[in-house]
Amino acid sequence: MEKFELHILGCGSALPTTRHFATSQVVNLREKLFMIDCGEGAQMQLRRSRLKFSRLNQIFISHLHGDHCFGLMGLISTFGLLGRTADLHIHSPQGLEELMTPQLDFFCKGLPFRVSFHVFDTKAPSVVYDDRSVSVTTIPLKHRVPCCGFLFEEKRQADHIVREMVDFYQIPVYELNRVKNGGDYVTPDGKVIPHHKLTRPADEPRRYAYCSDTAYLPRIIEQIRGVDLLFHEATFLQAEAARAKETRHTTTAQAAQIALDAGVKQLMIGHFSARYDDETASLAEAQAVFPHTILAEENLAVSIQKHSANKIL
Amino acid sequence: MEKFELHILGCGSALPTTRHFATSQVVNLREKLFMIDCGEGAQMQLRRSRLKFSRLNQIFISHLHGDHCFGLMGLISTFGLLGRTADLHIHSPQGLEELMTPQLDFFCKGLPFRVSFHVFDTKAPSVVYDDRSVSVTTIPLKHRVPCCGFLFEEKRQADHIVREMVDFYQIPVYELNRVKNGGDYVTPDGKVIPHHKLTRPADEPRRYAYCSDTAYLPRIIEQIRGVDLLFHEATFLQAEAARAKETRHTTTAQAAQIALDAGVKQLMIGHFSARYDDETASLAEAQAVFPHTILAEENLAVSIQKHSANKIL
Repeated sequence: MEKFELHILGCGSALPTTRHFATSQVVNLREKLFMIDCGEGAQMQLRRSRLKFSRLNQIFISHLHGDHCFGLMGLISTFGLLGRTADLHIHSPQGLEELMTPQLDFFCKGLPFRVSFHVFDTKAPSVVYDDRSVSVTTIPLKHRVPCCGFLFEEKRQADHIVREMVDFYQIPVYELNRVKNGGDYVTPDGKVIPHHKLTRPADEPRRYAYCSDTAYLPRIIEQIRGVDLLFHEATFLQAEAARAKETRHTTTAQAAQIALDAGVKQLMIGHFSARYDDETASLAEAQAVFPHTILAEENLAVSIQKHSANKIL
Repeated sequence: MEKFELHILGCGSALPTTRHFATSQVVNLREKLFMIDCGEGAQMQLRRSRLKFSRLNQIFISHLHGDHCFGLMGLISTFGLLGRTADLHIHSPQGLEELMTPQLDFFCKGLPFRVSFHVFDTKAPSVVYDDRSVSVTTIPLKHRVPCCGFLFEEKRQADHIVREMVDFYQIPVYELNRVKNGGDYVTPDGKVIPHHKLTRPADEPRRYAYCSDTAYLPRIIEQIRGVDLLFHEATFLQAEAARAKETRHTTTAQAAQIALDAGVKQLMIGHFSARYDDETASLAEAQAVFPHTILAEENLAVSIQKHSANKIL
């Protein structure tokens, strides 16, 4: 199966601790890298991950709170020093370009590449990225400022040719693409060999949903139903439900309830409040509701699998 | 002796590596903290150092390159979340306030404390901080943009009273301050007891000089002569002298030469280029010129001693 990995660069909340960096993660889809949020220290963590800086062209910022974007200036400066020439695309709610442009002009004069800002509406889902292999759609969330999560969806690929059958029927090369994409093969003497005899079905497209920061928001369930991996913020334990509501965050039990109601394959919780010394209680609280829960953790990498447990790398 | 410590939060140069954070350090002088430069990640490293955030009121920024100031926004936000109320003073060359104000207004609305910006001239030494126990003076440097180092000088304290002599002569309490500060004591029957018999001399004031970033600049020698600890940048090895000159940095051998010519007690080198996998060669090159050299390193803390080797904590 083609590579579809999630790398956690940081999974703390606004106050960094000795254990957690601010929020940032990278989706590696067939060696194209997509960054989600870029808290302070993201570039150091990216270097630690051994992912290639040059493969990162798209950054998605969920909302304009510092712990989700203060790493951008450092990352962009570093791209400049590394001699990057490819455009860098930053997708965010309204306002980021205006805030960053004066600093970019001052600190990054003469960048050898273009930083291209793209604004998305935070009220309704919209496709913010689309290529042959993946699309990224916003998931409108509810936080203290305009905020969206992101749904990564693989595109269905062409079916796999069964080499033995191609040889057996001596199917000419120029016919193969048609067959891969659903066509039957008609032999020179008119016999129809149906598509399904010549191919193995393509892998089922996989889906990853990122939901942070947000109040408990059951209306997202339809959009993320059945995803292979859901990252959901779980800033507070249920004991702090009032504080969660007030600050528009989700409790751990609520995050697990969303996972359960959406029938996702696996839940990863993160964006942990600095008040907790470790996440033992968070994991227990989530697993009581939704057993297939894992904890986010700095430098964790997960390979997203279809219909089976996601593999920790 | 009163506490006078240097804590290295980061000692890399513009490109962070898996081993080095961008530049930041903290001087702890009798539990007052002074930050020098504030590269990305400074607040995480400050937390790791276990130094108290609330003790930090003064930040000195050597120059407006990102690797020396991109950590400010995160640090200030964190101060806000921690409920800080004391003014925070940031000293820097011209331009920082204008760059930061729009971001502070947006990301740190309603901060419970004031951020007060102070501009220093980078052409001539000037006192940027002064209290009962310490003064901080700029050291004009030569870099691609206006830049200064900083000289921390302890104030000479009053001499120590020798308790036994005070008891012996039954010196009244109201006379003690006068004696401490250099006065003799006259007994009720007119006998003069000289100051030096009643006191031990105060500790010699200690001095710490920070010089980064800069081209090789012998004119700083007079200002830093004899300091107890000199931090000097040593971005490149001597083999890269041309590159050092071009980018207005110092080679390791040149930094050691400055230390030698200035007769400092100890040299600490840092601001290492990302091109080096470790600093073995840097240390060897420096020690060949100036044996009392140590390497800066993240999370290193050094206690500054007068007239003896500084103590690694």
